[in-house]
Amino acid sequence: MVADVLAGDFRAIARLITLVENGAPEAVPLMRELFSHTGRCVSIGVTGSPGAGKSTLVDKLAAHYRDCGRKVGIIAVDPTSPFTGGAILGDRIRMQSRSLDAGTFIRSMATRGHLGGLSRATADVLLILDAAGFDIVLIETVGVGQDEVEIARTAEVTLVLLVPGMGDDVQTMKAGIMEIGDVLVINKADHPGVERVEAELRSLLAISSRPDGWRPAIVKTVATEGKGIEECAQAIDAWRDSQRDSRFQRERSLQIHKERLLELISSEIQRSLMSAPGMTARLESYARRVAERSIDPYSAAEELLAAWVESGR
Amino acid sequence: MVADVLAGDFRAIARLITLVENGAPEAVPLMRELFSHTGRCVSIGVTGSPGAGKSTLVDKLAAHYRDCGRKVGIIAVDPTSPFTGGAILGDRIRMQSRSLDAGTFIRSMATRGHLGGLSRATADVLLILDAAGFDIVLIETVGVGQDEVEIARTAEVTLVLLVPGMGDDVQTMKAGIMEIGDVLVINKADHPGVERVEAELRSLLAISSRPDGWRPAIVKTVATEGKGIEECAQAIDAWRDSQRDSRFQRERSLQIHKERLLELISSEIQRSLMSAPGMTARLESYARRVAERSIDPYSAAEELLAAWVESGR
Repeated sequence: MVADVLAGDFRAIARLITLVENGAPEAVPLMRELFSHTGRCVSIGVTGSPGAGKSTLVDKLAAHYRDCGRKVGIIAVDPTSPFTGGAILGDRIRMQSRSLDAGTFIRSMATRGHLGGLSRATADVLLILDAAGFDIVLIETVGVGQDEVEIARTAEVTLVLLVPGMGDDVQTMKAGIMEIGDVLVINKADHPGVERVEAELRSLLAISSRPDGWRPAIVKTVATEGKGIEECAQAIDAWRDSQRDSRFQRERSLQIHKERLLELISSEIQRSLMSAPGMTARLESYARRVAERSIDPYSAAEELLAAWVESGR
Repeated sequence: MVADVLAGDFRAIARLITLVENGAPEAVPLMRELFSHTGRCVSIGVTGSPGAGKSTLVDKLAAHYRDCGRKVGIIAVDPTSPFTGGAILGDRIRMQSRSLDAGTFIRSMATRGHLGGLSRATADVLLILDAAGFDIVLIETVGVGQDEVEIARTAEVTLVLLVPGMGDDVQTMKAGIMEIGDVLVINKADHPGVERVEAELRSLLAISSRPDGWRPAIVKTVATEGKGIEECAQAIDAWRDSQRDSRFQRERSLQIHKERLLELISSEIQRSLMSAPGMTARLESYARRVAERSIDPYSAAEELLAAWVESGR
């Protein structure tokens, strides 16, 4: 399977991703082997409000990079449903909207489980696509929340999409957008209000500074018509050039690796915890007692933890 | 401090929340003591796209409940910045937009750290406000992602806000919205396109069903003008009535408590891991080796975990 993934075989890649998503133990030795073949691809996170046109921009960026002869991977992250615990809509719907060719691999993902769900799985899929020889991996999520922060940490470059007239929430988040976004994209730049958003961003840029000294570029696009896509790709390159071999880039990379190690450790502990003999029943019984308020959750967690440690790990 | 919180003293409440947010060990015995005084308040999660008008709706719902003589708490969850690790904008800006009186407590929160950050802290703050005698606690987040799923799990009732003309992403998410949202609110119902969103929601409702048999109510509001707020509160009551003493309600509650216990255990393990002697330096050194690709992250995590177990726990 490793050889097939390294050779870029789509079916092998898809199978390994499924193993990783499901937290299958057999994925670990495979991932270990693949790791030495990674470190070449450029990862681009794309975030922004629903309705900002992320999918379209990702489509057009992918097409642009394909035109330049690059192999492109797309990871589309869907929100988890608390009821089904899986992706609401799978690859099917997303793929319809994208012109596929042999050089583009698309994967839609759900964020299963709690511990390092999204970011861990996304980081693993990124490694797989990297090892499989993809030059560019675009990571797109639904929503603007903790997820996007994780992505800002997972991807090398983060694009934040804004659109004219999105209301007060965008205003509230703008300072955060500035820190997360390496490139700020005003999409739907043919809509009214674009000058206002741009002016607000520029005045915010004028008064704020980032630890890495980078002033996020502002790019205007009309993704549906393919306008501004090349400028967007140029801004991504400019950001990468500015970071190359910089102290901040090294620190950022080290920080990403540290957090990833902590995630891996946590999910391993979680796995060990849940597979300890009798743990499921014990957890259920404590949860019942907490619900009845015959024990507080803090004491319950402590007793459960003690039972796990005693069970020998 | 416990007595002051139980008496509803705002300063004591704020101080305890800060302790909880910072993961201070001294918060645990206090939370233990408070727990037996909880279980009375109604928690309402409010989620939806940026620009959907969540803050305004929360404002107006809070005012409505105040008019009914209830004590109201508001928890506003901001996205974390990966650079500053804290809330972008604090209580200040949010509070300006809200008419405060002695019966309304507002707290803006950041999602610090990784493990069960948002959901753990939100659950703790909810318990504090519950113990402090708040009848209603509104939980509002920015964004539509994993966060919101956590909130759907934390709050008793979840409101999902939609607005007319939000584009394809809303369409993509609609199935998820249906499962997460107990009450669906079409805000800005004076904007064009409201009939279309409503018709789409109704047709989706007609073909889908939830495990608990509940058909989410659709409420139209113009929050800025206070229109539809009472209908919204009635829909919340109807949902609560439908769930009272139902098997699904008990299962949902049990599931919430189980996940909360797992979160508490994980964050305790995380704390213990990070405070183990020499762990910070060891983590740093392994992260460096992973960045240089002289070790893969899976082996590094395994070795770090082994070192921690050996250190005696």
